[in-house]
Amino acid sequence: MVPIKFHSATLLLVIDLIGTFVFAVEGASAAIQGNLDVLGLMVLAFATALGGGIIRDVLIGAVPPNSIKDWRYPAIAFAGGAVVFFQSSFVNQVPASLIVTLDAAGLALFAVAGAAKALDYGIHPFLAMLMGGVTGVGGGTIRDVLLARIPSVLHSDVYAAAALAGAAAMILALKLKMRPALASTIGIVVCFVLRMIAVHQHWNLPRVPTH
Amino acid sequence: MVPIKFHSATLLLVIDLIGTFVFAVEGASAAIQGNLDVLGLMVLAFATALGGGIIRDVLIGAVPPNSIKDWRYPAIAFAGGAVVFFQSSFVNQVPASLIVTLDAAGLALFAVAGAAKALDYGIHPFLAMLMGGVTGVGGGTIRDVLLARIPSVLHSDVYAAAALAGAAAMILALKLKMRPALASTIGIVVCFVLRMIAVHQHWNLPRVPTH
Amino acid sequence: MVPIKFHSATLLLVIDLIGTFVFAVEGASAAIQGNLDVLGLMVLAFATALGGGIIRDVLIGAVPPNSIKDWRYPAIAFAGGAVVFFQSSFVNQVPASLIVTLDAAGLALFAVAGAAKALDYGIHPFLAMLMGGVTGVGGGTIRDVLLARIPSVLHSDVYAAAALAGAAAMILALKLKMRPALASTIGIVVCFVLRMIAVHQHWNLPRVPTH
Repeated sequence: MVPIKFHSATLLLVIDLIGTFVFAVEGASAAIQGNLDVLGLMVLAFATALGGGIIRDVLIGAVPPNSIKDWRYPAIAFAGGAVVFFQSSFVNQVPASLIVTLDAAGLALFAVAGAAKALDYGIHPFLAMLMGGVTGVGGGTIRDVLLARIPSVLHSDVYAAAALAGAAAMILALKLKMRPALASTIGIVVCFVLRMIAVHQHWNLPRVPTH
Repeated sequence: MVPIKFHSATLLLVIDLIGTFVFAVEGASAAIQGNLDVLGLMVLAFATALGGGIIRDVLIGAVPPNSIKDWRYPAIAFAGGAVVFFQSSFVNQVPASLIVTLDAAGLALFAVAGAAKALDYGIHPFLAMLMGGVTGVGGGTIRDVLLARIPSVLHSDVYAAAALAGAAAMILALKLKMRPALASTIGIVVCFVLRMIAVHQHWNLPRVPTH
Repeated sequence: MVPIKFHSATLLLVIDLIGTFVFAVEGASAAIQGNLDVLGLMVLAFATALGGGIIRDVLIGAVPPNSIKDWRYPAIAFAGGAVVFFQSSFVNQVPASLIVTLDAAGLALFAVAGAAKALDYGIHPFLAMLMGGVTGVGGGTIRDVLLARIPSVLHSDVYAAAALAGAAAMILALKLKMRPALASTIGIVVCFVLRMIAVHQHWNLPRVPTH
């Protein structure tokens, strides 16, 4: 089998940096509810925005991770944190529906970027899909662990599932010889649309039967 | 000093895969008590079964970890999760004593496999023993952290201690020039028997004195 | 730009090992409050003392981490744990002010050692400063996560900020062509003094405004 590759470093970087900003804003927003100081807010912004990608990079052997090699990643994460800190009254007025939409966008970007990078490191497509999921939900999971909450990935409605579906769609599109730009667009749209429908239709995955 | 090596990749793989299935079943069972959906259950199965080995591999420099390079690991972990999901009424009827026994078996397999792999990566025997312990208890610790519980490794009866003893026995047997198959059998038996006796005799390690 | 390097492996090792002992004592002390057994205490000593350095090493690509390659690190961590276990009545009588002072010293040592090592691995100075912070607060954060507490780094007074300042001061001094011994002394003093003043003056970073 010819290995599936993504082969578009620039596109990957752009997707990754936009996702980083979105997730940093979201991570920092979690600090507003807690009683955190400005550094705690920055730690949450950093962990939420870069945690998933760092876990992925360590797992696929891409060390040092991009976020540590390239100062633009932490700079963007801290910029997202700063926006929340200085504009917290504004951030508080942002309607919940916009936050959910931004989050779905960040999830879609990270899931596709994560799977694409794993493919380029020679990871098996099945595991590349999982790496897409890890990239998408890893940062939020670290944030929840730091806040001593059960991570939403364990009990939330269709969230990680949307990330996995988006990553799978992108990989399948590459397998069908589509170009990286098209394949990643398909993956992002699949994840985003699935997540948004799930939120609005209150979709849930089957629960574990209890007896 | 001639470095101690394990040198039996096939045996290591078989031990590792059996341990993976046992721990996946156990991790997924923890989801039955919580109010988790099927993906949360799979995340717990994956983290419990593969978390310890992933931490070990990252620490000894074996990246990408086996569980990421080799699709059989996650496939087996998810198979374990699926068994629990579809047969949860059956799993609920399994007597606690059988679960404890399976867990002791998984612990013994992982402790020995973890230490053996560390030796093969040129790690000092003392640290290889610790890596055996990390492999044995790492997955369960991640599961407990995700469930926002204090990991049982911190306060439970003889558990990590049995893993360390099994790893140490295996390393000692290799040092005495025994063959890998014999040395690993000895290590597995030592850990398993120690753990089972500890459970039945309610052995506990000395507590930290409080004044 | 000529990359900034630290270039003094022996000095780095000495700083690192002293910091390891101090943090091991502190991590093990946290076990006295919980109801932990001797192995739980050792796990906390190990995680607190070596966790930050392990995260740093994995992130900068220095795998296996020093603490896994070099048996002296875990040996010193366990020695710190043993002191607490056997002398817990003595440790309990140690005045809180001495513990705070020791902790500030450990923080300063780790922040400077962490940043210095990152520089030697070719990491950008901005990220090397962050790696200093991670080295300083990482172990305590793992300890808090294991104890299912919100890590103090998220809400405490000037702590991680002092680590970042010390790391930044050291990097700046190297940039000004000072020798490693002088630069690291400056960094350690900056972090230590800042932390001690913050404790005594009840300095706090600005809180996230809540509306």
